[in-house]
Amino acid sequence: MTSGKAVGFGRVAIIGTGLIGGSVALGLTEAGAAETVVGYDLDREALAAGAARGAIASVAGSVGEAVTGADLIVLAAPVSEMASLCEGVAQRADPEAIVTDVGSAKARAVYEGERTLGRRFVGGHPMAGSERHGIGAADPALFHDAWWILTPTPMTSSAAYRRASALASTLGARPVALAPEDHDRLLARLSHLPQVISSTLVASTVQEEDNPTLLGLAAGGFRDVTRIAASEPELWVSILRANREAVLEALEGFTGELAGVAEWLRAEDWASLATFLGAARSARVELFTKSTLQGVPVLLTMPVLDRPGVLAEVTTAAGSLGANIEDLRIVHSTEGGRGMLELVVVGEDAAEQLARVLRDSGYHVEFGRPTG
Amino acid sequence: MTSGKAVGFGRVAIIGTGLIGGSVALGLTEAGAAETVVGYDLDREALAAGAARGAIASVAGSVGEAVTGADLIVLAAPVSEMASLCEGVAQRADPEAIVTDVGSAKARAVYEGERTLGRRFVGGHPMAGSERHGIGAADPALFHDAWWILTPTPMTSSAAYRRASALASTLGARPVALAPEDHDRLLARLSHLPQVISSTLVASTVQEEDNPTLLGLAAGGFRDVTRIAASEPELWVSILRANREAVLEALEGFTGELAGVAEWLRAEDWASLATFLGAARSARVELFTKSTLQGVPVLLTMPVLDRPGVLAEVTTAAGSLGANIEDLRIVHSTEGGRGMLELVVVGEDAAEQLARVLRDSGYHVEFGRPTG
Repeated sequence: MTSGKAVGFGRVAIIGTGLIGGSVALGLTEAGAAETVVGYDLDREALAAGAARGAIASVAGSVGEAVTGADLIVLAAPVSEMASLCEGVAQRADPEAIVTDVGSAKARAVYEGERTLGRRFVGGHPMAGSERHGIGAADPALFHDAWWILTPTPMTSSAAYRRASALASTLGARPVALAPEDHDRLLARLSHLPQVISSTLVASTVQEEDNPTLLGLAAGGFRDVTRIAASEPELWVSILRANREAVLEALEGFTGELAGVAEWLRAEDWASLATFLGAARSARVELFTKSTLQGVPVLLTMPVLDRPGVLAEVTTAAGSLGANIEDLRIVHSTEGGRGMLELVVVGEDAAEQLARVLRDSGYHVEFGRPTG
Repeated sequence: MTSGKAVGFGRVAIIGTGLIGGSVALGLTEAGAAETVVGYDLDREALAAGAARGAIASVAGSVGEAVTGADLIVLAAPVSEMASLCEGVAQRADPEAIVTDVGSAKARAVYEGERTLGRRFVGGHPMAGSERHGIGAADPALFHDAWWILTPTPMTSSAAYRRASALASTLGARPVALAPEDHDRLLARLSHLPQVISSTLVASTVQEEDNPTLLGLAAGGFRDVTRIAASEPELWVSILRANREAVLEALEGFTGELAGVAEWLRAEDWASLATFLGAARSARVELFTKSTLQGVPVLLTMPVLDRPGVLAEVTTAAGSLGANIEDLRIVHSTEGGRGMLELVVVGEDAAEQLARVLRDSGYHVEFGRPTG
């Protein structure tokens, strides 16, 4: 892992210094990985608090001021602000500056980012933090061992991908690449649907006429299932709004399953119900016992055509296998249009799997540095 | 609280020495509250383990042998066994023996208990333990500070109620009375529906084609919501089977709410969604911050007609207010048909509330021991 390694980010602009932006700023500052961290937030108090905590070296008066001269720009404001923020960045940032974001829905954000900023934008989503919020809860260790999903597309430049991936690693996270739409479908199932379900369970079980003490009868199971119903409503409306289609699709899948369960109860089909509960149990038990992406770094190399799309094809193939690309670079050949892609994948099994998939797609993959 | 007080239970028979039965046995033995604890279980190994752990002083070869000469009989076997167990008890137990159970659905169990055993049966449901099971997980402290719901009916004798309530208190639990049907509806909402939802969420989100590592992206929220999906399927089928009607009703309520949420998403009605999530959040935050039934014991007395139903009327009125009746007895008057009911309620506010409700129902309630 490259965790904690000082990568030399130059001037980093953080737009939005809440929980995530503030933690990115603190993590970079603590690792000594940036020359300077400049922050901007609509909420001047959050910004002042960020400066007071030592997360931000200098406070900008506007988005334009923050991004001027920045090498890396991290957009950590609500998803709904993406379009206008990207416009602001495009007007004032260096054409070479890399831009990434941290929003929890990606298709729309990536669309906005690429429309305005082109190849130098790559979407990101660190899988950390959600119930607490604000700079007060910011923590340089927030991303330690967390996943940081990157969502490159055929348009994404390898410089943007590498930079965003290095940011994640520097903060102690494990970068993994998924196509924006795959990210959104996965998150709808694993995060957004559970939130909707949890809130709906509270709404349907806690009734006004209930005596509050009796509700205290609710045991640990109810507490667990409804814990995230205490999350910030505004934050969740903005997430559900940004990922509306995928959430509706996940919701339909759930509703269909639930109708099946109700039917077994109605028909007193206890055997089917037992099978169903047993399968869910096995799935849940296995869920968090699988590989956690640890292992030795393995170098894979392959000649690639220097055309748009190669990077996204390779990284998202790795992502969909759950393989963690620790490092990646394209060594350009002197012959026009060809280059050598070098990938460092964590774990021998993951490297073997990825090599197989890439070979099936026609790539000539070798382990280690190719001879000759 | 009378927790830990040696109440003198005489010979106690525990039928079913799994997690709950085993913990009852251990708790009684540790408190020195029973003259002897005899156990029976179909699973001879569980029984031997119970004896080895010192929970059971003597191991019976049959239900009949276990209950012969017992003063208190605790049925801690699966709900599906209730009918046949009650028959077995009726054949061999003393007519004076008090019988209670610990099942998590009450209407059917109480129906079976009263049909076979009459006034001396009172239903019970300690709100403790569910994910772990078996005598190996038994713990004398399992019920400490847990609720122990009793479900008296107009048929229940005051001796049965007092005895079961004393059992709960002796084990460190807080007894509270609810009508069997109210118990079942409440538990359907607070326990059985959440279990169904949690399992269904796993089933609808974890798909076979998923790469297991990617599912590891699931964040804390998903883990919380699906934790109870890892519970024992057989146990849950028996619970859902016993409480089928109330679970179906709760499920319909939930499905209706969820359809409303889906409609807001479809219509992009973010204001309604925000209001909904906000209300669920408030309800969840308040849920576990309410009174936990602590306070000084307050004595209430009132003259009552010595007719069936008075006890259930008073105790379930207290239960539906969430008031904890710590002690209760009926002092019979020498004049036929009249008596004095003495209640000890925990907490002055709870006592005031209960007195008001009982006065509204026509009882002449006084605080403290009545003069004259």
